[in-house]
Amino acid sequence: MALQKGDAYVLGLDYGSDSCRAVLIDASDGSEAGVAVMYYPRWTKGLYCSPGDNRFRQHPQDYLDVLEGTVKEAVSKAGNGIASRVKGIAIDTTGSTPCAVDAKGTPLALLPEFAENPSAMFVLWKDHTALAEAAKINHLAKTWGGEDYTKYEGGIYSTEWFWSKILRVFAEDPRVAEKAASFLEHCDWMTALLTGADTIASIKRSRCAMGHKAMWHRSFAGGYPSEEFLSKLDPRLVNIRKSLGTETYTSDQSAGGLTGEWAERLGIPAGIPVAIGAYDAHMGAVGGGVRPGWLIKVMGTSTCDVIVAPQPAGGEKLVNEPLVNEPLVRGICGQVDGSVVPGMLGYEAGQSAFGDVYAWFKQLVMWPIEALLPGVEGIDAGTKEKIAKEISKKVIPELEKTAASIDPASTGIIALDWLNGRRTPDANQLLKGAVTGLTLGSDAPRVYRALAEATAFGARAIVERFRQEGVAIEGIIGVGGVARKSPFVMQIIADVLNMPISVPAGDQPVALGAAMFAAVAAGLYPDIPAAQKAICAPIEKTYTPRAREAGIYDKLYQEYLKLGAFAEKG
Amino acid sequence: MALQKGDAYVLGLDYGSDSCRAVLIDASDGSEAGVAVMYYPRWTKGLYCSPGDNRFRQHPQDYLDVLEGTVKEAVSKAGNGIASRVKGIAIDTTGSTPCAVDAKGTPLALLPEFAENPSAMFVLWKDHTALAEAAKINHLAKTWGGEDYTKYEGGIYSTEWFWSKILRVFAEDPRVAEKAASFLEHCDWMTALLTGADTIASIKRSRCAMGHKAMWHRSFAGGYPSEEFLSKLDPRLVNIRKSLGTETYTSDQSAGGLTGEWAERLGIPAGIPVAIGAYDAHMGAVGGGVRPGWLIKVMGTSTCDVIVAPQPAGGEKLVNEPLVNEPLVRGICGQVDGSVVPGMLGYEAGQSAFGDVYAWFKQLVMWPIEALLPGVEGIDAGTKEKIAKEISKKVIPELEKTAASIDPASTGIIALDWLNGRRTPDANQLLKGAVTGLTLGSDAPRVYRALAEATAFGARAIVERFRQEGVAIEGIIGVGGVARKSPFVMQIIADVLNMPISVPAGDQPVALGAAMFAAVAAGLYPDIPAAQKAICAPIEKTYTPRAREAGIYDKLYQEYLKLGAFAEKG
Repeated sequence: MALQKGDAYVLGLDYGSDSCRAVLIDASDGSEAGVAVMYYPRWTKGLYCSPGDNRFRQHPQDYLDVLEGTVKEAVSKAGNGIASRVKGIAIDTTGSTPCAVDAKGTPLALLPEFAENPSAMFVLWKDHTALAEAAKINHLAKTWGGEDYTKYEGGIYSTEWFWSKILRVFAEDPRVAEKAASFLEHCDWMTALLTGADTIASIKRSRCAMGHKAMWHRSFAGGYPSEEFLSKLDPRLVNIRKSLGTETYTSDQSAGGLTGEWAERLGIPAGIPVAIGAYDAHMGAVGGGVRPGWLIKVMGTSTCDVIVAPQPAGGEKLVNEPLVNEPLVRGICGQVDGSVVPGMLGYEAGQSAFGDVYAWFKQLVMWPIEALLPGVEGIDAGTKEKIAKEISKKVIPELEKTAASIDPASTGIIALDWLNGRRTPDANQLLKGAVTGLTLGSDAPRVYRALAEATAFGARAIVERFRQEGVAIEGIIGVGGVARKSPFVMQIIADVLNMPISVPAGDQPVALGAAMFAAVAAGLYPDIPAAQKAICAPIEKTYTPRAREAGIYDKLYQEYLKLGAFAEKG
Repeated sequence: MALQKGDAYVLGLDYGSDSCRAVLIDASDGSEAGVAVMYYPRWTKGLYCSPGDNRFRQHPQDYLDVLEGTVKEAVSKAGNGIASRVKGIAIDTTGSTPCAVDAKGTPLALLPEFAENPSAMFVLWKDHTALAEAAKINHLAKTWGGEDYTKYEGGIYSTEWFWSKILRVFAEDPRVAEKAASFLEHCDWMTALLTGADTIASIKRSRCAMGHKAMWHRSFAGGYPSEEFLSKLDPRLVNIRKSLGTETYTSDQSAGGLTGEWAERLGIPAGIPVAIGAYDAHMGAVGGGVRPGWLIKVMGTSTCDVIVAPQPAGGEKLVNEPLVNEPLVRGICGQVDGSVVPGMLGYEAGQSAFGDVYAWFKQLVMWPIEALLPGVEGIDAGTKEKIAKEISKKVIPELEKTAASIDPASTGIIALDWLNGRRTPDANQLLKGAVTGLTLGSDAPRVYRALAEATAFGARAIVERFRQEGVAIEGIIGVGGVARKSPFVMQIIADVLNMPISVPAGDQPVALGAAMFAAVAAGLYPDIPAAQKAICAPIEKTYTPRAREAGIYDKLYQEYLKLGAFAEKG
């Protein structure tokens, strides 16, 4: 336990929406030894996607192409002799991002006959093609007369999740449906691959993934929704259910040892434990320092809001027995025993659009430059490109700078942040955004400020829902791009929530969280809280609410709720 | 009556918000003989105004400075020998635009001691400083127990009108209040000036101005609200009331002959009749071809919607007796016997922001260019200016071009056009605009299209109010900048109203209308309909509603009404 600096290293591998990053840290104190990032080559070219239809697919070969490169680069950056001291590896991915696989667990798009078939690829978390399928699941769950299997997932099953996407793939291509022996979440495929698990039955499923997105719960017989329920959706789901087994595993456990082949390719020792995988936001919450009563907001294009609570009496040991008194939280994205920190209940919520709201406004006001600058005559293309690039880079910082000096009581503008639907509370992908209270004097910085306030009001709606449902929130930690880059947004959120928000140092909280799981799976720490204590980055900045602003926002939040109620009833 | 080409010319002088234009036409057929435009020099420099406070004042010297120049230029453009054949002159101005005057009818700002005092200048129509004063008038009218003097002005007295502005000037400067022998509307000052009427009692007041904005009505004893009513607002109003006399005059009548002094300065014959003045939109409606059952929309930054109806039995001759069965129209800007076409009832309505809504959006999306282009390094100022200018010029046309190809059923965006409050139906300056139904795919052309649709829905609300109140509308004519320049907007309005809209040729319908009044006052035609028949420009283009779009907009209009109801109840 008295780990010294330089004794042991662990590797966190973070598969995000666009790129993969490998972070090698010193297990004694979390200091970074090496980092590497690579973008998915096919995805970067826009292959297999149709953004207008919200169809987003990723080729499994993209994940393979970046694996060796990022790990080798991170390890080589760490310096000579470090590779042999790597003691464990853990992988997080986006999710729910499932793929049809054959009997060996191989994604179908890696087989020659399906190589260019988007239905045989990973269906990325933000793919919204399964709207009808999700509606079907929700309708059946509420009406079939048996158990409501959505109850641990906030009572509403999403178009973005496992079973919706399987039904969608079945509808898209019967040949894929016929060939699919099972479906694997991206994180589970990665661990299967690195540990050499090459039969469906031998692949260990992630508690985080299956619990939050596949309706697995210990209280359901066999873990998943019953055969009867699934066969009403599609008889082919019965075999898929069988392929999943009945158990799921938390990420402090090893999925197995790294195979010799992959050890050689990655340049790290064979046999080191590969931890059970999990979703990026969940490992990011651990990396950000999640603990009971603290909400971690992973703030990027959207947010994932994670909170943990002590396990009620009964706990982990009673597999397939319900937890005693597990409180149900309405309208969130799921509550799963052990999904974030093993031994605790993990809750997930989130905002469907966060940074994306600001990006939308930027895109709106950049229209004249994008559409008209190229046509201005008598100026060379290079100059135009330079102008467009420089203005594009400055738009958000300069809007923030100007908007920061506007009194929140003065604009009269109330906006609604649902430009990508609403994830929580009470998922509804059909809801839309709004900007109201506009006058001829409502300039770009004023509208921008109102949009930032709207995303803060969205954050408050989630906090209030948790509290209404009996989940205490004592503190808030922000991680992710927006948390680090936008003091303007962070201060507004602190004011709107009337709570301090702390932001830890470090650019890679997600990979850092993964590395902590690697360290626990490798036996370097007894559990996640112990690993967090040693490894978590210190708080770099805390945003303190201002009393005057908090008072103003208390009133404006009521206007936001009224506008939301209007938008919802249509 | 058999007027031949070249026999007789008449002059229309149109004082707009920013500039004055003089149009000399051949009275036989309306063909233009000469046109001249001059901008107000002090106004152009922004003097005496505070746009942030909605304070807009115009110096009387500005009006004098452009008078001689425009008339002389228009006449000289017409060619040799034409000047002597000018048979009459008529003047329209903006309004309600009143000014405090001394006992000779001289605007106080023309006296040395008030030369730089904005309270002694004309209070421009769009000056909104008299919010509290209008509220006081409305409150008293509804509660004092006597006649509701607002009843012929839609039941709501505006901050933009005569008595509100007088009270405001009184509140601003007691010295101005003390010196003011009366207040004159801009149009009445111009006729007094040209005809040499230099005592308050001898100045003839415009029916159009006093009827629509000063609560003059034949059925009220003495024409105006009673002394008792006015003294409850401010005892000093009693003397102002006395100064107004009891009669008002329609613009087919001569206010008097052009004085020798002004004849010399303008270079046209002395003694020719100067018609009673009126507001620009009203004379513009006549110029555009207004006739019973036809709504004329004067479409610029805002709209003025004018309609005439045959006088009920009883009519003009019964001075100070109520018209028999004059129907009251709720929530418009006034109904006045003879204000538009003498012998008919004239109704006025309008949208507070029209072209201004499009201009607002342009300003919003131009923010990056306005705020950030100047700071881009390594590019000379001239190039930047050229880029900004060219893009600025193209933004609206290109937005329209792209937006025109978007299916109205597809955007899902519903906007509210009240960015400058709502003029009609049911004036409420406190209402605001909105854009709802936004998604991450709502780009600039989609939002722009929704804003154009919102202005069309605002137009429809006015048409529906007239119809509900029993005023038939058989046809629509559009004049003004937007009508001539934006087929995109005009087609949407035709679709939304599900009625054809006709646009007459000619760039100066307002001055043309003034010239018609000059012709009638000069006896060249017996009445306005006869003058219109000879002089009105032909219809240049008619926009025909498309059945599919009209059906879609029927549904979207219901959404607009719902959004409006939400915005209104707050």
